[in-house]
Amino acid sequence: MRRKVTLKQIAKELDVSISTVSKSLRNSLEISEDTRQKVQAFAKLYNYKPNNIALSLKNKKTKTICIIIPEIIHHFFATVISGVEQVANENGYNVLVCLSDESFDKEVINMEMLASGSIDGFIMSLSKETQQKKDFHHIVEVINQGMPVVMFDRITNEILCDKVIIDDGLAAFNATQYLIDKGFKNIGLLTTVDYVSVGKLRTDGYIKALKNNDIKVNEDLIVKIEDTENFEHKIADMLTQNKLDAIFAVNELFAVTAIKEANKLGLKVPQDISIIGFTDGIISKYSSPTITTVSQNGIKMGAKAAQMLIERLEAEDEEDEKYRTEVIETELVERESTK
Amino acid sequence: MRRKVTLKQIAKELDVSISTVSKSLRNSLEISEDTRQKVQAFAKLYNYKPNNIALSLKNKKTKTICIIIPEIIHHFFATVISGVEQVANENGYNVLVCLSDESFDKEVINMEMLASGSIDGFIMSLSKETQQKKDFHHIVEVINQGMPVVMFDRITNEILCDKVIIDDGLAAFNATQYLIDKGFKNIGLLTTVDYVSVGKLRTDGYIKALKNNDIKVNEDLIVKIEDTENFEHKIADMLTQNKLDAIFAVNELFAVTAIKEANKLGLKVPQDISIIGFTDGIISKYSSPTITTVSQNGIKMGAKAAQMLIERLEAEDEEDEKYRTEVIETELVERESTK
Repeated sequence: MRRKVTLKQIAKELDVSISTVSKSLRNSLEISEDTRQKVQAFAKLYNYKPNNIALSLKNKKTKTICIIIPEIIHHFFATVISGVEQVANENGYNVLVCLSDESFDKEVINMEMLASGSIDGFIMSLSKETQQKKDFHHIVEVINQGMPVVMFDRITNEILCDKVIIDDGLAAFNATQYLIDKGFKNIGLLTTVDYVSVGKLRTDGYIKALKNNDIKVNEDLIVKIEDTENFEHKIADMLTQNKLDAIFAVNELFAVTAIKEANKLGLKVPQDISIIGFTDGIISKYSSPTITTVSQNGIKMGAKAAQMLIERLEAEDEEDEKYRTEVIETELVERESTK
Repeated sequence: MRRKVTLKQIAKELDVSISTVSKSLRNSLEISEDTRQKVQAFAKLYNYKPNNIALSLKNKKTKTICIIIPEIIHHFFATVISGVEQVANENGYNVLVCLSDESFDKEVINMEMLASGSIDGFIMSLSKETQQKKDFHHIVEVINQGMPVVMFDRITNEILCDKVIIDDGLAAFNATQYLIDKGFKNIGLLTTVDYVSVGKLRTDGYIKALKNNDIKVNEDLIVKIEDTENFEHKIADMLTQNKLDAIFAVNELFAVTAIKEANKLGLKVPQDISIIGFTDGIISKYSSPTITTVSQNGIKMGAKAAQMLIERLEAEDEEDEKYRTEVIETELVERESTK
């Protein structure tokens, strides 16, 4: 029997993006009529079955929820999964995990696949590429067809749904202020590129703390890192070209790499330079020195997200309740990497 | 509309195990007739729909595969997922991840849920509890109904299917021999309890290396750890009660904890004691000193498992090909924790 044709295959065959195929099948006016017709004809010919979420929702509850995470290198996402599992299992729900691998296409494909009746709702953190493209049509569609979505950590204000976040700006402000209170003035920032929403917020918090204390913001001390590989030389350059008292890093991978690069240059942590990270993961706990860090409380974040999703799934009254944004408290865990 | 009743709810309601419910619904003779009748009557009353895998398989291919892992604390499983994703995506397959949380029940529930037409096949590593119970009926059933399963790492010889392993015994033998070659005779072993198949094999490899070199096996130097929490005191006891030259640990969590406990007792690594771990994860890379370790090559393992599963899914000829067991090569990565 002929296999079911997928969005990806249609996209490849017609040499258009997955997003274009998806929008064309929904007859979106964003796509030219010519392309829409071509995609629709092809889909019909090859018997593509678009999902009928509304129908499947009426017919069954799967008691399964899906969490979509961008990657699993960072321990933070593993802790969020633990929190989701805990609350879901207590309430009789199973959990599926999907990885978007920071790819917009994979995010779209995963949502399309699962929204067709395999699960009851989504918990998700946006991929880097989705944040860069600002294309959220796949999420809007899922929500419009009656399937609840709870976003966490990497969210967007362009989607109306329940959200769980930490106050990234405040957490970064507090971490920077902590370094300033110790008398440090030359404080470097290791952050992500600006389109990663949480990276941008943490950068803003750092800048606000400096300004609040009348410390001039020096752009040379702000290093924006795009990839999770081969970024060591950027940190080494920052350390050799500037006389730094301290560094605030927006994740633990950047923090531990900063310790390694400082050591290579003969700088001792914390005697010569203090370092604060973000995310209380296994690296922070097991590196030497152990790393002072902002704890994001991933377990609590996951637990809250699962609770909000299940409440929405089990609400008797289907009237539109207002969407909520819950802010999980962060705390600074003091360890050995700061004086 | 009334929600679909789940295996778990039936088990709870009748105060029997999930395994008993599952077997009763399949009319297994392992279960007393009385219990079978009770479960079947209840399931009928509440409209429980057992999966009809054979039927769904005839009707569609989902182009989705599922990997079931026991937990995500160990970075090893994250690397296997990466390998699976890579090969699956190249071949147009989506990947779902499920966690069994080392629980037999969760393994059964996840397989039951997904085998009902949501996916085409499974890649899995057994939960600790499943290995302890030696109850594999849920896996046998899935295979008997025509859905391929590839097991990796924690496997069992009681199931006939494709498997991907490393030679755990040989890898442990080589790591221990490496320490012996350096002139060490008092070598401690930090391992898991014996029912964890890979832990047992690694213990055997350690013992074999000692015997091969006419070193007496001292049971006091073999510490078997059951939990992943609160085991520090066991390592501290081992270090204070014995004069050790070296330690071989069967995972990186045990290895890094041994370094910490040694340091607390004033022992320097590697000057006073050498330590080798197992699994080349982020802890081994970022701890100080960095840890000499057996690399399990998780990415390669995942890639091979995905390749074997997809080959079986896409085989034109449905004749029973022979099941294969692929052995992935390991290597010793030399770092700072050994002299």
